[in-house]
Amino acid sequence: MRATRFKTRRARVLESLGALEADAVIVTHLPNVRYLTGFSGTAGILVLESVQEPVFITDSRYVSQSKEEIGELPIRKVVGSYDETLARYARDRAYRTLAYEEAHCPVSRLRFLESSLPETTRLMGCQGLVESLRAVKDEEEVERLERAARGLEPTVDSLRDEIRAGVSERNVAAELDYRLRHNGYDKTAFDTIVASGPRSALPHGRPTDRRFEPGDLVVIDFGGVMDGYASDVTRTFSVGEPSPEARRIYDIVREAQRAAIAAIHPGIEAQKVDRAARDVIESANLGEFFGHGTGHGIGLEVHESPWISPGRAERLQAGMVFTVEPGIYIPGQGGVRLEDDVVVTKEGCRLLSRAEKALQEFSWVCYV
Amino acid sequence: MRATRFKTRRARVLESLGALEADAVIVTHLPNVRYLTGFSGTAGILVLESVQEPVFITDSRYVSQSKEEIGELPIRKVVGSYDETLARYARDRAYRTLAYEEAHCPVSRLRFLESSLPETTRLMGCQGLVESLRAVKDEEEVERLERAARGLEPTVDSLRDEIRAGVSERNVAAELDYRLRHNGYDKTAFDTIVASGPRSALPHGRPTDRRFEPGDLVVIDFGGVMDGYASDVTRTFSVGEPSPEARRIYDIVREAQRAAIAAIHPGIEAQKVDRAARDVIESANLGEFFGHGTGHGIGLEVHESPWISPGRAERLQAGMVFTVEPGIYIPGQGGVRLEDDVVVTKEGCRLLSRAEKALQEFSWVCYV
Repeated sequence: MRATRFKTRRARVLESLGALEADAVIVTHLPNVRYLTGFSGTAGILVLESVQEPVFITDSRYVSQSKEEIGELPIRKVVGSYDETLARYARDRAYRTLAYEEAHCPVSRLRFLESSLPETTRLMGCQGLVESLRAVKDEEEVERLERAARGLEPTVDSLRDEIRAGVSERNVAAELDYRLRHNGYDKTAFDTIVASGPRSALPHGRPTDRRFEPGDLVVIDFGGVMDGYASDVTRTFSVGEPSPEARRIYDIVREAQRAAIAAIHPGIEAQKVDRAARDVIESANLGEFFGHGTGHGIGLEVHESPWISPGRAERLQAGMVFTVEPGIYIPGQGGVRLEDDVVVTKEGCRLLSRAEKALQEFSWVCYV
Repeated sequence: MRATRFKTRRARVLESLGALEADAVIVTHLPNVRYLTGFSGTAGILVLESVQEPVFITDSRYVSQSKEEIGELPIRKVVGSYDETLARYARDRAYRTLAYEEAHCPVSRLRFLESSLPETTRLMGCQGLVESLRAVKDEEEVERLERAARGLEPTVDSLRDEIRAGVSERNVAAELDYRLRHNGYDKTAFDTIVASGPRSALPHGRPTDRRFEPGDLVVIDFGGVMDGYASDVTRTFSVGEPSPEARRIYDIVREAQRAAIAAIHPGIEAQKVDRAARDVIESANLGEFFGHGTGHGIGLEVHESPWISPGRAERLQAGMVFTVEPGIYIPGQGGVRLEDDVVVTKEGCRLLSRAEKALQEFSWVCYV
């Protein structure tokens, strides 16, 4: 069953490869390798071709693990370096055109292959061969992403009592990460962000020893990985009663998020979803304080295609999963960001990271 | 004081750059950027040149943070993409020869620069320009690495009571990570490995729901980051009384580690330290079960130069910091690995990850 899924995915890559008139492709980006084989380790290369079975190259640390994970695929153990092993294999196979992932291949590897392969082998850079498939999730992937998203809100909610004056950003981050693990996550999807007071205006603030003070805004951006799939949400709290200005900014961000979510449906350009959020913030004359895009795809990676940003004309498709995360950051003062994960459905979209009801009512209270 | 340190490092890179007859170098590898500027975020590019101040390119998420961290350096905010911003800057500066980090530059970025820069600018790949400096730590770096290493043994030691039949790999990993954070670490240096019973033969086993059974070997490989610097140790436990075979393997690995540590001094080739460990394991006819190298450098990255592996003829220098981690893995049965962090001194080396005394006596008891 699992093996079939990977085989189907590989067949789709081979179709694109045929269109490019390449004999084979070297897949080096690990999330792509995982998508096509099931391998979850941190070192391995897949060589896919149509004439012969694909081959998986890995080193001694991962030979046993890959046998368990990738089933029937032939495995080549690294002798010398990965590049040497890869070059030997490609020479043996006498490819005429060998494709590689241009965005994931360092120039040093390309130079090595150029100098190691015969002149009869042409190396051809390609882009997004696997990523374009990965952007649209199948049913099982959506289920996994939903499982990975569902546990986040209860986890941060359980921390409500910790968000009080005197507690440090670092302590809250450590506690949150611990609870994620105890709630069944394999690990955090990225370094948890806890940014308080003026530091909440840093969109990517690392947790420090700063202790919360009354009136602080606290931005918590975190996620977990379950079965290989990532999730990513942000909540903004207030320590005690928020100032009228904080409340105003919070409400604008909430409205921007709601507008973006309402705009999502198959066929819309990604940039128009971004525009929906941005319009709300610009109408409040705060556009200059929303410097990043509205969202990014999530899946085997926490940042992947599609990109919900200005200038992105790609059209959304049912099965795409991404974040919706507008924010407003006033330097030196504070910031607010709200982020949820959604899947595009036939009609519109569905929230993965919190109850659908919350979208209608926004009954979740941000202030403690 | 801090600013001076980064300036000195940049001056050393510029010296090498002069020798290469390049006008400027694009530094894209984030640990290298951090080494040369102090920037700790996850997106930024440094362009270093001798005629003019270096420039730091980052996006809106990191502008405030980088102002705090990199002090006087001019900052350019990304407009469009990083590559576009970089290309605009390089065009303005009209470089004749522009170097880039070949091992960290994806081919797609090189292609973009080739098509965006005038023909009068030659792009030149270079290797290890910053890494070669980073391999030899200064006093402050050694202090940080020692602080990052010192907390590991007490942390794993505090878990002794958790290593008993019925407890799962996943629970031990979650507990360990939590205690690391509470012991002052910013985060784990990599995904903690807890591999038990037959799974201990997987050198990089991810923690699963497998519960420990009496007689299991349990390999725990973990590390923490403090002030940006990483540490990395491995301990092997036995759940209850170990079998005579487990005890034998453990003693061989211990002896191999001791032999490698005894071989370390300035001037020795890295591969000879590996050889010292390997000789012990090969003498026991277990060489085929030690598939990886004996160690790797640690610093801003958890795997960096120098590499203590077969074929590595680089000579060790005082100030280098690396792991010493021989292991024996019998597929389907179990494995043992022991890993500590050392700094090369004028006379030999010094253990960072546990008391020096332990090296003499190996009084630390592996069996619980």
